[in-house]
Amino acid sequence: MNRQELIDHIYSKGSYLCVGLDTDPEKLPDILKNDPDGVFTFNKAIIDATRDHCVAYKINTAFYEAMGSKGWDLLERTAAYLPNTHFRIADAKRGDIGNTSAQYAKAFLKMLPFDSVTIAPYMGADSVQPFLAYEGKWGIVLGLTSNKGAEDFEWLHLAGEDAPTLYEVVLSKVSEWGNIGNLMFVVGATQATAFSRIREIIPDHFLLVPGVGAQGGSLEEISKKALTPDCGLLVNASRAIQYASSASDFAEQAEMVASGYRSEMTGYLLPRLSQIGRKPW
Amino acid sequence: MNRQELIDHIYSKGSYLCVGLDTDPEKLPDILKNDPDGVFTFNKAIIDATRDHCVAYKINTAFYEAMGSKGWDLLERTAAYLPNTHFRIADAKRGDIGNTSAQYAKAFLKMLPFDSVTIAPYMGADSVQPFLAYEGKWGIVLGLTSNKGAEDFEWLHLAGEDAPTLYEVVLSKVSEWGNIGNLMFVVGATQATAFSRIREIIPDHFLLVPGVGAQGGSLEEISKKALTPDCGLLVNASRAIQYASSASDFAEQAEMVASGYRSEMTGYLLPRLSQIGRKPW
Repeated sequence: MNRQELIDHIYSKGSYLCVGLDTDPEKLPDILKNDPDGVFTFNKAIIDATRDHCVAYKINTAFYEAMGSKGWDLLERTAAYLPNTHFRIADAKRGDIGNTSAQYAKAFLKMLPFDSVTIAPYMGADSVQPFLAYEGKWGIVLGLTSNKGAEDFEWLHLAGEDAPTLYEVVLSKVSEWGNIGNLMFVVGATQATAFSRIREIIPDHFLLVPGVGAQGGSLEEISKKALTPDCGLLVNASRAIQYASSASDFAEQAEMVASGYRSEMTGYLLPRLSQIGRKPW
Repeated sequence: MNRQELIDHIYSKGSYLCVGLDTDPEKLPDILKNDPDGVFTFNKAIIDATRDHCVAYKINTAFYEAMGSKGWDLLERTAAYLPNTHFRIADAKRGDIGNTSAQYAKAFLKMLPFDSVTIAPYMGADSVQPFLAYEGKWGIVLGLTSNKGAEDFEWLHLAGEDAPTLYEVVLSKVSEWGNIGNLMFVVGATQATAFSRIREIIPDHFLLVPGVGAQGGSLEEISKKALTPDCGLLVNASRAIQYASSASDFAEQAEMVASGYRSEMTGYLLPRLSQIGRKPW
């Protein structure tokens, strides 16, 4: 999916919501606990319930790998079920030397129908570039993450006159390896104080923003600070949507939560429509 | 496998060789190209041919993921075939927020029979700690990698009086999150100039050292600089062993190369035997 298709989808729907599928077999609703294909049944129900409210889906590969080879099969089937109208993210945090990163890129961007993969930047350019070599596909590189551990390295100051932090150097250096049509960055919603600074470094790149919902980030604050004329945000919620209810109404409740996020996002997008000469959807 | 068992294995064999299984279906020997189970047949042959010469095996997960769910099945079967006398490494470069890292740890240390997983440190403590919570299992954190991209971030100097590099801070900070019995570090063999400095920061930790062979690192130089009384090194070779020959003698040639590494390693270990009061094997 190219950048313009993504933007068109966002503005046609008034939403920049990404729904995360971090499906934990132990957290399935009671009515699916004895279903031999419960995880897939659950994922299908969540996708069907939320597709009108979101523009992207993010599959967290860890939860599938933890189920063994059955899990990788579930990952494949879930990925195949994602609507291709939506931006499909493999949240896999991969990255290795060049010839190995090329294998990871093949795994997610060729063998599986994802539009993008999340990437850990520690190993530098040759660990990132193989993910940027697929036409119409994207690499999404970790910038400033939502977790407490972000303090350990990402926030460290580097030597030099203005002593930038490591995450700032990651954003500026990695942005030179690709362009706004094949590269996004992960910035956690819990890092709201940093969003203005981040937009100085990468004014136009899309940001994938986890951390709203269970992790406590504010959708309002990050939207005010980081929305661009092209939207430029994909805000993810996983647990808050997937586990909105553990009863038989789990899909309806998931839709309610997703719809609520969409309505709030519509409110933040509306004032921007005149800037870009679009009519309300 | 605990630290003493690993050391005993090393000194009983006179080897600190790790054999990497980065199996690429396109590089199989000609006689296996039409074998429907060629990758597994190849892996078994390489394992059988090298087990007397090495103390560890490292499976590079990317090469298996690139084959889809069939690949994850091959990963499981190959992992199950690894002798449990050997230290088994999932070279997966994982790392995410705490609850997700816990899923990755479960995938490799509980569902699969690995002794250890390689970990990317960018996201900090809560991304690493779940891998250290399994009794007798290990996390192997990226320190200074073998690739050119190591220059992009790992070699950057941080602010502060002595301006340490990022990789130095990673080694010293991460070493506080575990101990020499559950934590190792990846240091590339191509970074030979750094090994003396690394031993100042982490004098006792085992280092997993890729980059000998195809990537050009010197076994002699890193052994002289980084061997400890407990050995403290696992040196990996993948392509140089796996693809020693593409003819029908591939297993014999793989054994020859592995045996050559072992002989060289024996030479570096011998002078240390008196230090620790052991007799030659």
